[in-house]
Amino acid sequence: MNQTSWTRCHILSLADFVPAEYDTLLQTAASFREVLSRRTKKVPALQGQVIANLFFEPSTRTRSSFELAAKRLSADTLNLSAGTSSLSKGETILDTAKTYLAMGADIMVIRHQQAGVPQTVATEMDRLASGVSILNAGDGQHEHPSQALLDLFTLYSFLEPNSPSGFLQGTKIAIVGDILHSRVARSNIYSLTSMGAEVHLAAPSTLLPKLLAHITDGTRVGKLFLHWDIESALQDADLVMTLRLQSERMSQHLLPSLREYHQYYGITRDRLKLCQPGVKLLHPGPVNRGVEISSEVMDDPQFSLISQQVTSGVAVRMALLYLIGSSKV
Amino acid sequence: MNQTSWTRCHILSLADFVPAEYDTLLQTAASFREVLSRRTKKVPALQGQVIANLFFEPSTRTRSSFELAAKRLSADTLNLSAGTSSLSKGETILDTAKTYLAMGADIMVIRHQQAGVPQTVATEMDRLASGVSILNAGDGQHEHPSQALLDLFTLYSFLEPNSPSGFLQGTKIAIVGDILHSRVARSNIYSLTSMGAEVHLAAPSTLLPKLLAHITDGTRVGKLFLHWDIESALQDADLVMTLRLQSERMSQHLLPSLREYHQYYGITRDRLKLCQPGVKLLHPGPVNRGVEISSEVMDDPQFSLISQQVTSGVAVRMALLYLIGSSKV
Amino acid sequence: MNQTSWTRCHILSLADFVPAEYDTLLQTAASFREVLSRRTKKVPALQGQVIANLFFEPSTRTRSSFELAAKRLSADTLNLSAGTSSLSKGETILDTAKTYLAMGADIMVIRHQQAGVPQTVATEMDRLASGVSILNAGDGQHEHPSQALLDLFTLYSFLEPNSPSGFLQGTKIAIVGDILHSRVARSNIYSLTSMGAEVHLAAPSTLLPKLLAHITDGTRVGKLFLHWDIESALQDADLVMTLRLQSERMSQHLLPSLREYHQYYGITRDRLKLCQPGVKLLHPGPVNRGVEISSEVMDDPQFSLISQQVTSGVAVRMALLYLIGSSKV
Repeated sequence: MNQTSWTRCHILSLADFVPAEYDTLLQTAASFREVLSRRTKKVPALQGQVIANLFFEPSTRTRSSFELAAKRLSADTLNLSAGTSSLSKGETILDTAKTYLAMGADIMVIRHQQAGVPQTVATEMDRLASGVSILNAGDGQHEHPSQALLDLFTLYSFLEPNSPSGFLQGTKIAIVGDILHSRVARSNIYSLTSMGAEVHLAAPSTLLPKLLAHITDGTRVGKLFLHWDIESALQDADLVMTLRLQSERMSQHLLPSLREYHQYYGITRDRLKLCQPGVKLLHPGPVNRGVEISSEVMDDPQFSLISQQVTSGVAVRMALLYLIGSSKV
Repeated sequence: MNQTSWTRCHILSLADFVPAEYDTLLQTAASFREVLSRRTKKVPALQGQVIANLFFEPSTRTRSSFELAAKRLSADTLNLSAGTSSLSKGETILDTAKTYLAMGADIMVIRHQQAGVPQTVATEMDRLASGVSILNAGDGQHEHPSQALLDLFTLYSFLEPNSPSGFLQGTKIAIVGDILHSRVARSNIYSLTSMGAEVHLAAPSTLLPKLLAHITDGTRVGKLFLHWDIESALQDADLVMTLRLQSERMSQHLLPSLREYHQYYGITRDRLKLCQPGVKLLHPGPVNRGVEISSEVMDDPQFSLISQQVTSGVAVRMALLYLIGSSKV
Repeated sequence: MNQTSWTRCHILSLADFVPAEYDTLLQTAASFREVLSRRTKKVPALQGQVIANLFFEPSTRTRSSFELAAKRLSADTLNLSAGTSSLSKGETILDTAKTYLAMGADIMVIRHQQAGVPQTVATEMDRLASGVSILNAGDGQHEHPSQALLDLFTLYSFLEPNSPSGFLQGTKIAIVGDILHSRVARSNIYSLTSMGAEVHLAAPSTLLPKLLAHITDGTRVGKLFLHWDIESALQDADLVMTLRLQSERMSQHLLPSLREYHQYYGITRDRLKLCQPGVKLLHPGPVNRGVEISSEVMDDPQFSLISQQVTSGVAVRMALLYLIGSSKV
């Protein structure tokens, strides 16, 4: 499959992504990463097309990344931000989406605090035979596909395998943090296991998914392993992904304190010694220094792939917008 | 009159719009609607010009529509939003406008909660011989010319008359809702009656204008009819325009409740049976479903022209910006 | 020195600006002022480059001016505004800046309520050998270089000297207002005295810098004179710069009331009679009419250079972005 054979219209979830799609996405992103290293970081691919960024949940980083990706493809962008939106005037989300459709939006990038909203809008757009594509930029505790794809592309760029197919075979990846509430973890579990990785989830038991009636530390479900002991998750790991801790988890009594979280689950230089030599660290950002990761580790260039993730984000979002946009012609 | 003979510099009110101006506007908008159906929905007409969107009153829909219109004419846009503006620092509106003039704005699109602000700024711009055009995007309870023009263009596109002149002759149009406080109604009354329509205003008597000492249900003023009985307004109507109900009308004791409003003035499938077969429904948006219009009617494609209004909005605003911009050369 | 010999990568402070740099800046701004008088006010100089406007302290005027300057150089812009930023999520400023670096920003324009932030970010960008330039758009009570440079360019454009070198020699300039807390005054003192002007600072003694153990009215420090009597500062002045009065100075008990401030330090027609005939007035805006300047003087075109300052702002910021951008190739 090459990019001319891309047929997916919406990017809502990675649950049903197939290997050929991952391959195309990674190769397309690699070609855009090339564009980004030029002095004029722009291509005319989507000139005259309109991309509406509908961020019902506030965001700086993801919105900027999508906006920049759109501009670098020469598309025009429209931004709707929570708070200033018509939603506060009682309009339903579907009516808002239909307004942007009627204005001529070609692609809508949607973030919403409620799981399923991008899917609902996509279904309506299809029902109307609108031709509009929906890109899920994070929906509640459901999925955040572009984040998982940029994480995957970061690993692909770092490891430089001969071919993308199953390039994480034999790799142990630890995901540490609030797995239960994390749309980032959920999307990553799909993509990482699809590429062959063994994924070890580590969290306080209140923040682990209740997948099974009886889970014990180290319980295995296919290529997934669940741990409430971070040490066993990190043991011999090739890669460590940390998740952002939302401060509201404290008020929900799921965690005693940030300090205690850091003591038991924070990534420190000592804990990284449990991993493979050359272990690399990822975080979707923004990082709470001294909570998920110690400041010392954050500033050590030998461990962190965090800024590579941000760079990958622009390339991957260009690739997604481009593949979706091209599939329409 | 063709577009090269357009001479109006500001769009502040439709009170003195002449038929030739309506004709030019409708024909220009029709040519831009064409552009919008292309894959590359962009023309270089206003390249290098600066359009400042000064929205002292918050707005998503109208601001997005103007912004998209400007971008599709290849103009650069500057956005000032209420709340983040220098106004909170004690600057007067005229001083703010003069700042944007000095920065090089060619056209200013102004929305303000106070009637008359766009006129005041336009007078000052003329006094300074600045050459800057002002476009009223809604001022208090005064006027909202671009909304009325997009409504008109929606009807023009739907009815496809041979010529724009007086194309609503013999048409009965009901406008239902808070007429008294509506800048949309006011602008529409000018444009619809100019094109020959008979306009029937229906509202609770507390929300009808106090035009005359003694009005009774069905009172006629020229081509305008006032009703507090919605049934007589809808009887044999060809078109129904509904107005958005502002929730603050309740706290002003002008209305008992939204539910009661819907019971007496809401547009339902049953009420539409009073109208001509083929009746069409308009609403400036955002719609309070179940208040101005029942959800069932909203979702029935046989009645609603609402999404056509949104599409018309971009074409009409492109036409306005283009005619104003071209008249300067 | 011509523009190809420009070597400064960051614009953080005017403390160490050398005469050749002022000359280049003024001449480059003059050529861009030319561009702004054309119908198509745009050049392709920075096409494909990304300018991130990071305004941690809210601003309309300065942000719009930088944004417009960037667009007129055909650069792409990304905006981060206080309140919506990741900062509220606990991220440090350096981590935020590194995120924009990783996204591919070429220049970051930074405003922050804390003095020194742009310098700190610039140091980090250099340490990372990032090639990214930092432009200080106002940091706490430290400096606001682009404001002082636009003030200088306004005087240069007004006076039309044969050469920029020392073109303010023999000129008396009064700066009136809250000198102590003003980053605008501080940057202007560097630029104006570098160009040869005698600068007279006038303020209530609570708002004058505590430069010396014993200052009396009229104390001289090099080319600087300190006054708490506005009349002696205005006496025979060629130019008067007023500073914006922040309303929080009242709650800090540094000033009795706005009315009293105006009575003793406000610029009125009568006070201007003390100056040279042909005296001109500047203000960085937004102006509190009736506080720093009487409304009558504000509206008298014979005195004010305020709108020229705004126009100069776009030309000077284009020049800064251009010189910095070109120095990278």
